[in-house]
Amino acid sequence: MRVTALAGGTGAAKLLRGLASARPRHELTIIGNTGDDTEIWGLHVSPDLDTVMYALAGRLDAMRGWGVADDTFRCLEAMGDLGAETWFNLGDRDLATHLYRTRALGDGTPLSAVTAELCRRLGVAARILPMSDDPVRTRVRTPDGWLSFQEYFVREKAQVRVLDVEYAGAAASRPAPGVLEAIREADLVVVCPSNPVTSVGPVLAVPGMAQALAAVRSRVVAVSPIVGGAAVSGPAGELMRARGLPVSPVGVAAAYAPWLGTLVIDRSDAARVPELERLGVRPVLADILMTDRDREIALAQLMLAA
Amino acid sequence: MRVTALAGGTGAAKLLRGLASARPRHELTIIGNTGDDTEIWGLHVSPDLDTVMYALAGRLDAMRGWGVADDTFRCLEAMGDLGAETWFNLGDRDLATHLYRTRALGDGTPLSAVTAELCRRLGVAARILPMSDDPVRTRVRTPDGWLSFQEYFVREKAQVRVLDVEYAGAAASRPAPGVLEAIREADLVVVCPSNPVTSVGPVLAVPGMAQALAAVRSRVVAVSPIVGGAAVSGPAGELMRARGLPVSPVGVAAAYAPWLGTLVIDRSDAARVPELERLGVRPVLADILMTDRDREIALAQLMLAA
Repeated sequence: MRVTALAGGTGAAKLLRGLASARPRHELTIIGNTGDDTEIWGLHVSPDLDTVMYALAGRLDAMRGWGVADDTFRCLEAMGDLGAETWFNLGDRDLATHLYRTRALGDGTPLSAVTAELCRRLGVAARILPMSDDPVRTRVRTPDGWLSFQEYFVREKAQVRVLDVEYAGAAASRPAPGVLEAIREADLVVVCPSNPVTSVGPVLAVPGMAQALAAVRSRVVAVSPIVGGAAVSGPAGELMRARGLPVSPVGVAAAYAPWLGTLVIDRSDAARVPELERLGVRPVLADILMTDRDREIALAQLMLAA
Repeated sequence: MRVTALAGGTGAAKLLRGLASARPRHELTIIGNTGDDTEIWGLHVSPDLDTVMYALAGRLDAMRGWGVADDTFRCLEAMGDLGAETWFNLGDRDLATHLYRTRALGDGTPLSAVTAELCRRLGVAARILPMSDDPVRTRVRTPDGWLSFQEYFVREKAQVRVLDVEYAGAAASRPAPGVLEAIREADLVVVCPSNPVTSVGPVLAVPGMAQALAAVRSRVVAVSPIVGGAAVSGPAGELMRARGLPVSPVGVAAAYAPWLGTLVIDRSDAARVPELERLGVRPVLADILMTDRDREIALAQLMLAA
């Protein structure tokens, strides 16, 4: 059985960890969002790819949901002494990943090959593919102008109003090697409970992705990142509003309708079933809050059986 | 009073620390060796400039003689997990200096300006100038081929035979802004007890340096890095031999004779006085082993009074 998952960062990590442990055994390919990628201190940082990679390597900091467990921040402190920006928290162990990646990219290695090598070194069995080897950058328009996603999310702590979102570079980007095949040949395509606008949105903005998903629509199953009228975590609500989407599982279904077969929603949202059906999306009710490892695996098993 | 010092790394740090504390008050300019500079993990590392800078900022690790006191090596460990080279010990706090420098150089800032900014941020009162903003790289020929200085010194622990030494790029390099003026206008030029071949040698290889020193010869005072028949620290003996110089204060005087006024040698080397005089170098006997802070200052006071 071949499973391909579309993933952001923190929201996706739990379900992916569940999938990696769930039965039946399957080949897992993850298509990761790189719209969040940024340059910090001259280093190429890929926050979503790393969150997924660390989660599957058993190294993710469980409390924070990003970075390496038990990391220290001594270099960051010293950068502060030098007057450098310190709003983006790069841990000392985490830094190695960015140093390694930056040097390899500088040598001309594509991001997909660097990611594969990092996964191999960290013992990640799943295949993690960046959505594209070309730069696609999510930008957020606020009343004070355009911000990169990390400026908006980390520096401003998502506390500014969002007027618009764009995926700079998307039109000229191509899917990374293996991405379209992974969708085409999958027995199941899982869309993780990630932010539809800034995690899944950039993946869909890569030319060819939406068409590839539409072609296998009946095999595409998403988990709603929205329960009731709010995101399980992060600023998905504000960003969906900025895009004119209702902040509800119906808004998720509306965003994904052209290519989504099934949407797994929380049992508490059972009243939305008729609206999903009107959008042509098959609803499945489940306990979707992954509050511990058992629930991660249980939800993953349900997806594999879907 | 204006004092200009030519400096390598560990050997120079003690005397410079002494000079910074010694009376009479004076303006101290340090011309640092960049022949040791190297690229590690894609970062531009300037070991000698940093050793001097950390020493004068009160941050140098006293036990090791390089790096930042109380540093940790978590990033280095993680780089090892990724299969990267780990023979060059970059500490977590130390890393900030290299990240800062590499980004600034990448933005087109000359090394001299980056160094000035780092010193300002770390509260170093003395002016540290790299000998040149152009790349000059000390290379060491061994029976197995040419090595960079750091490969020879750190990776091979100076345990390979040296057949030759060269300063790649020196012929095309220019002194950094302020370097020649600092020599010309100094009331005293101090040559630190650094390795004559791989610390002072690269500085002298920059076109114009030896002439500038020769023009103020009577004001140039060096401290011998050799006591008896051996270097106080490091591989100076082996490297002097490779250059055909006797491993003694006389060898130091011979290397520096064209522009050296005075050589401070250890009292235990009093028998070499006639040979130094024959080379036209004025000998001064002193206790030159700087085994504690008081001796650093005492030797510095002696230089200022010379």
